[in-house]
Amino acid sequence: MAVGEYPFPHMYPVNGVKLTAVSAGIKKVGRRDVVLFELAEGSSVAGVFTKNAFCAAPVTVCREHLAAAPIRFLIINSGNANACTGEQGLLDAKATCAAIAELKGVKPEQVLPFSTGVIGEPLPVQKIIAVLPEALEKAHEKGWDDAGAGIMTTDTRPKGFSEQFAYQGKTITVNGISKGAGMIKPNMATMLGYVATDAKVSQELLQKLSREAADKSFNRITIDGDTSTNDSCILIATGQVDLPEITQASGELYEKLREVILAAHIHLAKSIVSDGEGATKFVTVAVGGGANRDECLDVAYAVAHSPLIKTALFASDPNWGRIVAAIGYAGVPDLDAAKVRVHLNDTAIVEHGGRAKTYTEEQGQAIMSQAEIAINIHLGRGDFTETVWTTDLSYEYVRINADYRS
Amino acid sequence: MAVGEYPFPHMYPVNGVKLTAVSAGIKKVGRRDVVLFELAEGSSVAGVFTKNAFCAAPVTVCREHLAAAPIRFLIINSGNANACTGEQGLLDAKATCAAIAELKGVKPEQVLPFSTGVIGEPLPVQKIIAVLPEALEKAHEKGWDDAGAGIMTTDTRPKGFSEQFAYQGKTITVNGISKGAGMIKPNMATMLGYVATDAKVSQELLQKLSREAADKSFNRITIDGDTSTNDSCILIATGQVDLPEITQASGELYEKLREVILAAHIHLAKSIVSDGEGATKFVTVAVGGGANRDECLDVAYAVAHSPLIKTALFASDPNWGRIVAAIGYAGVPDLDAAKVRVHLNDTAIVEHGGRAKTYTEEQGQAIMSQAEIAINIHLGRGDFTETVWTTDLSYEYVRINADYRS
Repeated sequence: MAVGEYPFPHMYPVNGVKLTAVSAGIKKVGRRDVVLFELAEGSSVAGVFTKNAFCAAPVTVCREHLAAAPIRFLIINSGNANACTGEQGLLDAKATCAAIAELKGVKPEQVLPFSTGVIGEPLPVQKIIAVLPEALEKAHEKGWDDAGAGIMTTDTRPKGFSEQFAYQGKTITVNGISKGAGMIKPNMATMLGYVATDAKVSQELLQKLSREAADKSFNRITIDGDTSTNDSCILIATGQVDLPEITQASGELYEKLREVILAAHIHLAKSIVSDGEGATKFVTVAVGGGANRDECLDVAYAVAHSPLIKTALFASDPNWGRIVAAIGYAGVPDLDAAKVRVHLNDTAIVEHGGRAKTYTEEQGQAIMSQAEIAINIHLGRGDFTETVWTTDLSYEYVRINADYRS
Repeated sequence: MAVGEYPFPHMYPVNGVKLTAVSAGIKKVGRRDVVLFELAEGSSVAGVFTKNAFCAAPVTVCREHLAAAPIRFLIINSGNANACTGEQGLLDAKATCAAIAELKGVKPEQVLPFSTGVIGEPLPVQKIIAVLPEALEKAHEKGWDDAGAGIMTTDTRPKGFSEQFAYQGKTITVNGISKGAGMIKPNMATMLGYVATDAKVSQELLQKLSREAADKSFNRITIDGDTSTNDSCILIATGQVDLPEITQASGELYEKLREVILAAHIHLAKSIVSDGEGATKFVTVAVGGGANRDECLDVAYAVAHSPLIKTALFASDPNWGRIVAAIGYAGVPDLDAAKVRVHLNDTAIVEHGGRAKTYTEEQGQAIMSQAEIAINIHLGRGDFTETVWTTDLSYEYVRINADYRS
């Protein structure tokens, strides 16, 4: 089940990125479950990773390798998360990197490993190593569709973004793919995102941009409030377009590139929400009028995580009492209930501590029946605003997660 | 649906408490929805209330009245929460108190009002006032069964506790009733609890005991993480037993009374969990080895609120990876994953950052198939321990909350 229109787009090639997906038989025989990225020499690579204390082995290895050497390869497997696998998990993640390094004559530190799938099972590292020659052979600039499909787990559809813009007569491309269906929450979830451009950006600036983009996208989505052990968001700049390297967060080229890279991240993040496990509604929770950013987020997540609100959304029930209750328990100090206003889309539903006088059940019902709904909350105590995106909670969510060993 | 054995017990009378339930037609015609307590003169009454910023009108009135005068009556209606009803809600709650005061020749401040049910609808105050003479007429010492049933909303069964103990040849009784099915979380939920004893306890000491007992019981249960606008927990000491007033938190009588009052609160709180909306499992999450109380609670609630864990519990799936992921994202600073241990009941499932060597899926499956399950977590960094109680997340939970306007 999925909600809204997030079709996989036509993917332009990105100069300096070759990729493919092959089948190693990790999950089901014949299913593509190993994705390989090969990056041109001179590429900058930045990343943002899960804050989960039980972070998976590949996350630990990624952090080490990003600090050590220029990255040339990304190797991603689905079907097994290599998480909670202790010392052996680290050895397995490194063995995969070493195998690519040996085949291609690079250092093991120039390879980033990623895994997504079942937690706590040993990584079938020999199966992955066995298909590396095939993957390296097949990798090409038009492999984005295959890669988008190859990183899926419980996703019902691949998620992609591709846009080009012109600057001084040159064409710059920004592409991205992502995966993740349940277990999605701030601070990253079983979420993998890869965005690549052929612009040239210094390593340091790219890392700042990666952090900013992740905070405004993957860190603002939530399906069930769970944060996974494996989440990773990678930003690549191959530098293959013939333009000077961008080293400062200013200037026309930087601003334009930043805009498209942010759009890519937000689109990929919203695509994940729209494909949330069992989702029938795409819900935007916007909280304004906060005294600071944190309290806006506290309220937004209290609303976005409330199972009572999520089941009401599933039932298309304009149950504003549950929204008000969630705002009330979000922990905002000295919140004045009388100043809080709530709108469903543009319709006022709560003001002066109770139901808006102009509000009718019919209005609420009409809005709640739509597939995309905005819950707009104003706290009436400041100028800060934050937005998160989430889904409803359906029978289907329970079915998927009661059945699936993730 | 409900889980575990929490039968409504035989209720001893409590000297100085008369009570009953009558039908005012607030919800369905013929259903008992108004409960009245009449307390003997000289009773001490203490209370703990929701921290929700949108607290309901009766909660505001209760706080005022408890500070103003000795309480003689409690009036409780189900079917309408009188929450988010603005100024009119306060007037309505006070009108109910005034009506009882006039009928019985007491001050309005000597009456505590409570409401539970739909949020945001005007309280049908005339319907309640109309049945007060009947309720006052019917109230008697054996009305506990009726009162237990009368405060129910989506509860599938009434919840009660009754125990007696002897001290210096006198018999002391401690009774309690509670209600609440969904929307149950720390800091109280759509949860009402009333505990009464005929011992004599000073107002000040009773308030301390009420706070302590609520913190160890109703503030340690969670079904869906939502906290309601109306939660109230009341502790009554009528002083009708011929023993000296207890004014100090020490001595044999105090210790014994405290023990039974704590047991009453914990039993009533666990009864609520066992009747959680759609519950098929009763789950104890115990977190030990914490550096402080807060981090134990953070981990316990992260596990207890995780929809992924709750659906796995529903499916009887020993998905320890989801438990580990929740511990990891609970936000414990510098948590050393390698020191964390997790047991399902007495069976080790996680140690040294991964699956316990001795653990088999068969063991996990056998435990998860039971109706009562303990998830025992040890953080390996201190001596603090906290326990919370919760349920699984089933299809039935979604059905109830997608259908019911609470």
